[in-house]
Amino acid sequence: MIRINENYTKLKASYLFADIAKRVGAFAAAHPERPVIRLGIGDVTEPLPPACIEALHAAADEMSQRATFRGYGPEQGYSFLREAVAAHDYAARGCRIEPDEIFVSDGAKCDCGNIQEIFAADARLAIPDPVYPVYVDTNVMAGRTGPNVDGRYEGILYLDSTPANGYVPEVPDAPADLIYLCFPNNPTGVVATKAQLAAWVDYAKRNKAVILFDSAYEAYIRDARIPHSIYEIEGARDVAIEFRSFSKTAGFTGMRCAYTVVPKTLMAWDAAGRPHPLHALWNRRHTTKFNGVSYPVQRAAAAVYTDAGRSQARALTDFYLGNAKLIRAAMARLGFACAGGENAPYLWVNVGRDSWEFFDLLLERAQVVCTPGAGFGKCGEGHVRISAFNSRENVEQALDRIAAALR
Amino acid sequence: MIRINENYTKLKASYLFADIAKRVGAFAAAHPERPVIRLGIGDVTEPLPPACIEALHAAADEMSQRATFRGYGPEQGYSFLREAVAAHDYAARGCRIEPDEIFVSDGAKCDCGNIQEIFAADARLAIPDPVYPVYVDTNVMAGRTGPNVDGRYEGILYLDSTPANGYVPEVPDAPADLIYLCFPNNPTGVVATKAQLAAWVDYAKRNKAVILFDSAYEAYIRDARIPHSIYEIEGARDVAIEFRSFSKTAGFTGMRCAYTVVPKTLMAWDAAGRPHPLHALWNRRHTTKFNGVSYPVQRAAAAVYTDAGRSQARALTDFYLGNAKLIRAAMARLGFACAGGENAPYLWVNVGRDSWEFFDLLLERAQVVCTPGAGFGKCGEGHVRISAFNSRENVEQALDRIAAALR
Repeated sequence: MIRINENYTKLKASYLFADIAKRVGAFAAAHPERPVIRLGIGDVTEPLPPACIEALHAAADEMSQRATFRGYGPEQGYSFLREAVAAHDYAARGCRIEPDEIFVSDGAKCDCGNIQEIFAADARLAIPDPVYPVYVDTNVMAGRTGPNVDGRYEGILYLDSTPANGYVPEVPDAPADLIYLCFPNNPTGVVATKAQLAAWVDYAKRNKAVILFDSAYEAYIRDARIPHSIYEIEGARDVAIEFRSFSKTAGFTGMRCAYTVVPKTLMAWDAAGRPHPLHALWNRRHTTKFNGVSYPVQRAAAAVYTDAGRSQARALTDFYLGNAKLIRAAMARLGFACAGGENAPYLWVNVGRDSWEFFDLLLERAQVVCTPGAGFGKCGEGHVRISAFNSRENVEQALDRIAAALR
Repeated sequence: MIRINENYTKLKASYLFADIAKRVGAFAAAHPERPVIRLGIGDVTEPLPPACIEALHAAADEMSQRATFRGYGPEQGYSFLREAVAAHDYAARGCRIEPDEIFVSDGAKCDCGNIQEIFAADARLAIPDPVYPVYVDTNVMAGRTGPNVDGRYEGILYLDSTPANGYVPEVPDAPADLIYLCFPNNPTGVVATKAQLAAWVDYAKRNKAVILFDSAYEAYIRDARIPHSIYEIEGARDVAIEFRSFSKTAGFTGMRCAYTVVPKTLMAWDAAGRPHPLHALWNRRHTTKFNGVSYPVQRAAAAVYTDAGRSQARALTDFYLGNAKLIRAAMARLGFACAGGENAPYLWVNVGRDSWEFFDLLLERAQVVCTPGAGFGKCGEGHVRISAFNSRENVEQALDRIAAALR
């Protein structure tokens, strides 16, 4: 008799954004005359940079001719893209990352979800709270946790991100093996300083731990003192894997392109204490279970690194940061304490009440969708995430409606 | 201390096609004057159907305008594609498959590799030999096998496909929980009759097992009596998951689009004997670890179902089948027994000697790349796979060279 992976039964009934979609769908169906503005899910709204569109058209033409047609590409991504990433995202910031340490993929969500497969089933997890649910859920599915008791899974060391620590968790006293970090943070929008990241790198070295560093939002950093990559920290090559994405950098949420960096110097150990390079393990996983990113999409991603592409992508992130600034100012006027929004497209608003209640209130009274903080973990309670991804007009209208609703 | 997933250390050193690429690369570097013709890896060579190119251009234009831009799509795929699949690939063949039972993905390799996650860690596996290595390797990585002893992993019930059974394995006497089947077969190119599939469906019902049916090559079937889908068999909805791909149907190997069908009536059980619908589990897996297929790619895939797209895709498979016919005839002239190639793009040639030795011989003497059967399993020894994916000119030249080399 075929049995299921019973770890799935430990998961809460559904995924956060599916819950939100359901409530918003019900509201929209009941009130078709009151159009909803979505500042909930972090999805971009502005068109792709023209350089990417041109690259897409050119690649489509290549696929139409036998001489230039491309079939299977390298599972790890084409050199033209891996080399551009290494040069622009790493060498230019003084990080030593080789092109063959970069694995191109169809999404940071996929990579963040899949990476845990190469580690032992009993790895001790340290995961921030609030957090992007994928880090937690994929480990629950893999059986690395106990049941969910009172909103938290047994067996996870939760790293509380609270107003008291400015939403940047300190290094814990207890040891952990696998540490998830995300800066600029989703959902809080806060960034980590070099000193804060250096403390984590030091912790990982002392504990022979691995840091899984999600920097999908680095393109929003404007403060020159803030690191964009964990590899800007001395020694991080030996303790960290980094995840990046074109989704929020260049509006690729519907295009699907991202990459993961696994330095060749990064090790994990077997039960006998022998070190194994994680690069080889991830390469085995990637080539066995993945077949590369669509060729036209890789061409479009490479176009982000051209002179035109870089300035167009910068204009996109500038635009969303302009929205974030408006949201921050409006929240301050309403008297809410607010983190994020300065080097990130997300704002984390301390609403001082039940977060789903506040979500429903904004939806009902202002027809604005935010994301209830409780969906990101226990420490998210009392907060909501507001996303800066929308048109200026919609953001302004949403802020007017929120102000009127909360007056 | 962070430890690795030690199941990876059970895997053989590298993936078959990486081994082949290495040998071919070394030969090409040593003999740049002797161009190699590749009939090894099953990669298409002809350009995309014009209908797909048009759809790609149109989608690129949509992504360039705010009003038509698409961000995140449904993880399971857009309705326009799921509905086309349900209508053309299933309803048209008399199979009851609903659009929401279809999960669009970026590759059948990914889906075949990921599907095992939703099943119990101790599921008893039945896997054909020879076989597409992904079925085996992904289960080894997940810890469902013991070590590899003498070329076979402990804990797998191997289904021998041999000249004696026409390379279609019979239903075993022993019970299994999870059965991998692939027809038209990779690597052998053989097809299964309705009666043969019905025996497997019956076996699965008796054993409360699940069949994982890979029909990535169904578009090559020309014999009207041969089923294209497992769902053409009565009762299969209750025991089978099916994998399909646009890769070989419409030349999408570099585009990345596929789909998996999980009927809502299909169950697996928990330890307490309660049934759980696998549709819900796969949906949870898919939405948690995947973020949908690139929008322009889904539009290109949907174009395969237009009138123009269907006839253009049919012309592609006709063309490759024309190559297969030439290869079959040439192998017969050389006195080799040969399976496949009539309803499949692969030919399985009984070469009567060590398959890597024959691979090296063809490479050295004819500069033709085939795939050594031993790479697909123990029963693959003594055979090579020849792929019909190439230009007519290259196939003809390869066959001339092979004939000269083996004279």
